Amino acid sequence: MTLQGTQIIAGEFRAAGTDQVRAVSPIDGRTLPTSFAQATPDEVSQAAAAAQAAWPAFRGTDPAKRADLLRRIAQEIEGLGDELIERGRLETGLAAARLESERGRTCGQLRMFAELIEEGSWVDARITTAMPDRTPLPRPDLRRMLVSLGPVAVFCASNFPLAFSVAGGDTASALAAGCPVVVKAHSSHPGTAELVGRAVAAAVRHEKLPGGVFSLLHGPGRSVGIDLVTNEFITAVGFTGSYSGGRALFDAAASRPKPIPVYAEMGSINPVFVLPGAARERSAQIASGLTGSVTLGVGQFCTNPGMVVGMAGESFDTLAEATGREISGVEAGIMLNDRIQRAYRDGLKTLQSTGQVEQLAVGRERSPDASPEATAGQAALLRTSAAAVLAERSLSEEVFGPATLLVAADDREQMLAIARTLVGHLTCTVHATEEDLHEYADLIAVLEEKAGRLICNGYPTGVEVCAAMTHGGPFPATTDPHFTSVGTAAILRFARPVTWQGFPDAALPPELKRANPRKILRLVDGVYTREGG
Amino acid sequence: MTLQGTQIIAGEFRAAGTDQVRAVSPIDGRTLPTSFAQATPDEVSQAAAAAQAAWPAFRGTDPAKRADLLRRIAQEIEGLGDELIERGRLETGLAAARLESERGRTCGQLRMFAELIEEGSWVDARITTAMPDRTPLPRPDLRRMLVSLGPVAVFCASNFPLAFSVAGGDTASALAAGCPVVVKAHSSHPGTAELVGRAVAAAVRHEKLPGGVFSLLHGPGRSVGIDLVTNEFITAVGFTGSYSGGRALFDAAASRPKPIPVYAEMGSINPVFVLPGAARERSAQIASGLTGSVTLGVGQFCTNPGMVVGMAGESFDTLAEATGREISGVEAGIMLNDRIQRAYRDGLKTLQSTGQVEQLAVGRERSPDASPEATAGQAALLRTSAAAVLAERSLSEEVFGPATLLVAADDREQMLAIARTLVGHLTCTVHATEEDLHEYADLIAVLEEKAGRLICNGYPTGVEVCAAMTHGGPFPATTDPHFTSVGTAAILRFARPVTWQGFPDAALPPELKRANPRKILRLVDGVYTREGG
Repeated sequence: MTLQGTQIIAGEFRAAGTDQVRAVSPIDGRTLPTSFAQATPDEVSQAAAAAQAAWPAFRGTDPAKRADLLRRIAQEIEGLGDELIERGRLETGLAAARLESERGRTCGQLRMFAELIEEGSWVDARITTAMPDRTPLPRPDLRRMLVSLGPVAVFCASNFPLAFSVAGGDTASALAAGCPVVVKAHSSHPGTAELVGRAVAAAVRHEKLPGGVFSLLHGPGRSVGIDLVTNEFITAVGFTGSYSGGRALFDAAASRPKPIPVYAEMGSINPVFVLPGAARERSAQIASGLTGSVTLGVGQFCTNPGMVVGMAGESFDTLAEATGREISGVEAGIMLNDRIQRAYRDGLKTLQSTGQVEQLAVGRERSPDASPEATAGQAALLRTSAAAVLAERSLSEEVFGPATLLVAADDREQMLAIARTLVGHLTCTVHATEEDLHEYADLIAVLEEKAGRLICNGYPTGVEVCAAMTHGGPFPATTDPHFTSVGTAAILRFARPVTWQGFPDAALPPELKRANPRKILRLVDGVYTREGG
Repeated sequence: MTLQGTQIIAGEFRAAGTDQVRAVSPIDGRTLPTSFAQATPDEVSQAAAAAQAAWPAFRGTDPAKRADLLRRIAQEIEGLGDELIERGRLETGLAAARLESERGRTCGQLRMFAELIEEGSWVDARITTAMPDRTPLPRPDLRRMLVSLGPVAVFCASNFPLAFSVAGGDTASALAAGCPVVVKAHSSHPGTAELVGRAVAAAVRHEKLPGGVFSLLHGPGRSVGIDLVTNEFITAVGFTGSYSGGRALFDAAASRPKPIPVYAEMGSINPVFVLPGAARERSAQIASGLTGSVTLGVGQFCTNPGMVVGMAGESFDTLAEATGREISGVEAGIMLNDRIQRAYRDGLKTLQSTGQVEQLAVGRERSPDASPEATAGQAALLRTSAAAVLAERSLSEEVFGPATLLVAADDREQMLAIARTLVGHLTCTVHATEEDLHEYADLIAVLEEKAGRLICNGYPTGVEVCAAMTHGGPFPATTDPHFTSVGTAAILRFARPVTWQGFPDAALPPELKRANPRKILRLVDGVYTREGG
């Protein structure tokens, strides 16, 4: 398939602007084929206006129709075959196997949301029936459910060119909720974005839905991104990326004449606490699991564990040594782009410049036959004291890449103090025996205040896509702790409640009709039921 | 009970500041007994710090304990007896009967949230069980539920001294969720606030909970309010009031280093559409119901219908005449304070200054034996054309008080155009026959995009407190369309999801334990059940 290098606006290729950008492969620094036209302000407006125009019809579709769309998108993406994987590999440096697995996850997510809306209970219907004879005032019939919020802007993430990009979880959940989507591609993988964008547009056409249900724009976040977020027709924003990027979008959205929610997932250091019993019992095993989690995908995951806190002493030294050995054996991987590579190196330097951090181990260099232009990222294991972390805030800042900082606490109180001073994170992990869990219940209670997901005897990387997932957390992990961006509950970001009062059955949405024709679970006068009411 | 005129901070009376304010009765302009010390910045910090200190213990309480607290608060408020009603009457000009009914609603809400958390399913538990043998990777056990967000700031509303004030819906839902509350009293009814605040503090003491669970502060929104919203320990804000007040709090919260959500309900004009069939069939009946809704509580409700759109012609003229007759018979009521009275008069003048508005009727003046200092508000009925409304935005702005603007549309398209140009509202109402509903389905679909509640053949005032209520809506009706501030779903504002991954049963919250000891409804591997899992 020849890449067009244009916007896709309501199903049409458009390239009115003169600014062009080409992707650079992190594998060898080579400029990749096809220039991508950056969206003009007019094109941003056109995409948003098309989304708004498509919204009434799209939100009015039967959920089965939207489920068909989601499944068709998955099928179209699968139909791209190896071309998608190859372009993705060239643009991101991620291995084909990883991209294949990410494609599986992406298509799986689309089908998961299809099932969710077919089943239908996600609309959280609540019914309070009329009491015409109540005194002093009769009670009217009230029926409430979640409805589509409106057009949604989605930003592609650098580190997930498929699962958090054009047809990733944000897009899938927004479309499932009946919201048209305008995607802004990431400049690191515009070709991957175009391929997936054409698959989505083809699915929209195949389902004979209005073209404005989906558009794809290219361009910088600070211009095209801000134009999109401040466009009057956009009602919510999904974003996965850096703190500075997420915060800029949040600030732009909040200062609009009509503010809109921004669901920005901005990553975190995902602290791991190795409690004394676990450290004694299985340091070697933890060292191995931890190294895998730290270096997976060259450490480029939002859930990468960037800090490991334990109690100073023999067991923690054993853990440090074993992890050091493991880390030393890991070959440098290719990072997503040179900005990320540079930020990783600078981050490590900043940590070391504090004079408080000892480097325990570094990973192997890239094999000699690799290109010297590759954006290699070498694993690193660092160590400091809890006292240093408590005294120096910068030691707790995220270094995006395959490194982690071991933090030795002198005592229980210091470990608790570290927990208490944590900002919001996506995850917090404990390695613990049953006895540890009991003895450190207060620590775990503190961690519960700090994260969206607590992990026991596991690792934060590997975010299961399911109903029970929370991929979110208190600021600055995200800009809105009420929601998750992974799993079925992600749809709640793009819906709002509406109550129908006193309407005859014929004028009610199917989900609220007295006979409950969709057989969804509803709360009727205090009882959860799939019966009528 | 002698009023203290102080802050109540974690159960203690405090008044470090020198600024004092006294309430003025809108009934006769008389300055009421007791000066109220305005909170100092230190006192704001103390209240927030006490809330933060109380939070871990409070959120860790058994829901039954928090239910006891809510019921005890209701009992303490009821125990205040006539003193509360009398002080409320003097401070607000609202009739004793209205205040008694509002007290009933307030205590009813507290008990409703007690029942909600005792039943427990509101935590929306979702469980995905482990699949240890899954390939390529095992699936961990994942269990998710809603937990308490953190300390909440609540702002009292001028127009509901009880139900949306110190122990109103915001406070009740926040306490139910396990969030300590710091309330800022309204300067119009500080004595009422103190009485209720002492009742809440007494209940906290009675339940032997940490005093920081509740504090009450006095002072201006622009200083004390902003200090509170920008305090580092506050995690969410509940507010009911004006657009300017709500927007100021929203902006302050969004520009914090760590932004927090503001749930500001800022009112709206609650447009009413009288469709042709209904206008033909029952104009007189609608005129009477409408007048009741427009003038109820001297028009000082967020859900007051400020605009009535119909099709120009004989039926609409009949409706206008009949409503005019009804309005003319309504005696002026006492408005909540002189600022509201002035804003009401100015709002009417602004409408008339456009030259596009005809005054059809005014209500009766206040009876001659009333005080000349009373903040009387006379009802008013105005009329304009849809063309004028479409041309002149200011005709669609809320005039808070007992007035409504009839808008005559020339045709169906003009009526639809009015609907399409609406901003967000709390409610939209249609008066319609079955045939109207069918014929104007497109209009109703547009209204669904604009409001949190749609009403058929009823009136927007009278907000039922129940599971199916949505008292919210798109901006500028509220700052967050995802939530309601009335009814059981209001608790969702003050909770966020947390997932426990791989935890042994003993370390899980009761709501997530395998045996489901609380017998709540949970989504277990795709099935809603009260069984274990």
